[in-house]
Amino acid sequence: MDPRTFAAIEAHMLSCMNDSAHDEQHIYRVLYAALDLASGYEIDQDVLIAAALLHDIGRDAQFKNPKLDHAVVGSEMAYAYLVGLGWPKERAGQVKECIYSHRYRNNREPASMEAKLLFDADKLDVTGTIGIARTLAYKGIVGEPLYSLDEEGKVLEGDGDAEPSFFQEYHWKLKKVYDKFYTERARRIAEGRRESSEAFYRNMLAEVAATHRTGRARLADLLDDMECSEAG
Amino acid sequence: MDPRTFAAIEAHMLSCMNDSAHDEQHIYRVLYAALDLASGYEIDQDVLIAAALLHDIGRDAQFKNPKLDHAVVGSEMAYAYLVGLGWPKERAGQVKECIYSHRYRNNREPASMEAKLLFDADKLDVTGTIGIARTLAYKGIVGEPLYSLDEEGKVLEGDGDAEPSFFQEYHWKLKKVYDKFYTERARRIAEGRRESSEAFYRNMLAEVAATHRTGRARLADLLDDMECSEAG
Repeated sequence: MDPRTFAAIEAHMLSCMNDSAHDEQHIYRVLYAALDLASGYEIDQDVLIAAALLHDIGRDAQFKNPKLDHAVVGSEMAYAYLVGLGWPKERAGQVKECIYSHRYRNNREPASMEAKLLFDADKLDVTGTIGIARTLAYKGIVGEPLYSLDEEGKVLEGDGDAEPSFFQEYHWKLKKVYDKFYTERARRIAEGRRESSEAFYRNMLAEVAATHRTGRARLADLLDDMECSEAG
Repeated sequence: MDPRTFAAIEAHMLSCMNDSAHDEQHIYRVLYAALDLASGYEIDQDVLIAAALLHDIGRDAQFKNPKLDHAVVGSEMAYAYLVGLGWPKERAGQVKECIYSHRYRNNREPASMEAKLLFDADKLDVTGTIGIARTLAYKGIVGEPLYSLDEEGKVLEGDGDAEPSFFQEYHWKLKKVYDKFYTERARRIAEGRRESSEAFYRNMLAEVAATHRTGRARLADLLDDMECSEAG
């Protein structure tokens, strides 16, 4: 890709980003990871770079209207943008396809090698501590809690919880991503990060579960004592 | 404390909470930790319970106007509330004092044992993985990035960075809190959590620094190659 085209697509991407978890830093990590994973594959570098830069430009639309799918919206936005920039429709269509199939939740299998590389690069950002960090920041943005409690005040572990929380998202997505990679290199990088993510979840669950368990029992005793002494 | 008073103060606290990092779960953890730490001390349990429940009710005012200090505002709100609830001024004043001196950034030393217990319980929620989780969620709420880059695109480690970020907050607050406890029990719990917090920072810095380092070099090569081939 020539530097002027890169600068134009980059500027367009930046103009579309405005939250903290899927922000511009995520885009650069995905771009950099995609270029790293691409080593040794015969691919269209321009398609991969454009797809990486533009893969989340539909986020804002989805954030404003959760019924929309940012992969679908973003793929169309990217296509229109690139054709407007003078790209041939066939090549803009390859970028569109990459973006269309990059989302974890969709079960739309990426077909081209460029699409698989984008998928893997994006999913690497869900692994390890960076995956934890982005998920927690996103919980802050959308105002969801870190964990939920059952009716007796016990901390729920997140496996099958009805309410959205960080612990639920860990079970629903973070811990499952390690089996989803298409390239061996991404799988290896992800495996190297896996324990840091699992350890974080394990430690956090242990910390908060102990605090709630000990404290609730103590509070119940205190309030009971008072009721007894009032009654007595 | 009699259960009716507890329920009234709890309901008042809940009506004041509305963000995700300093939300009601934090209040219960602080209450529970404070009751745990209080074991063996001769203290006024009601003062400690009321102070724990109400210690962050000034958060919203500070969030809306960052020049305000939630410890100062909250201490006055709590005093007025408790006097209105029928508490003697002297006892409401003890609660006020606890809340006034609970904030890490203030350098106002907690004087009473109740104030020290509240301080320690609140600071325990800055240690370990729960401290990491709350800080990351808060970065999401206020829209600050996870880390910053220097002019050459290298990930800054957070030690002395000018811009606010998660890495900066880790250096500024999270890693320093372990020396600040008044009670031996809090210090011991904190020490037990320390490695999980340090490991998270270490791993996340390693992950993102490697991604940026490798990827930037690769991208620069690609864009240079293109410039050469265009020129040649």
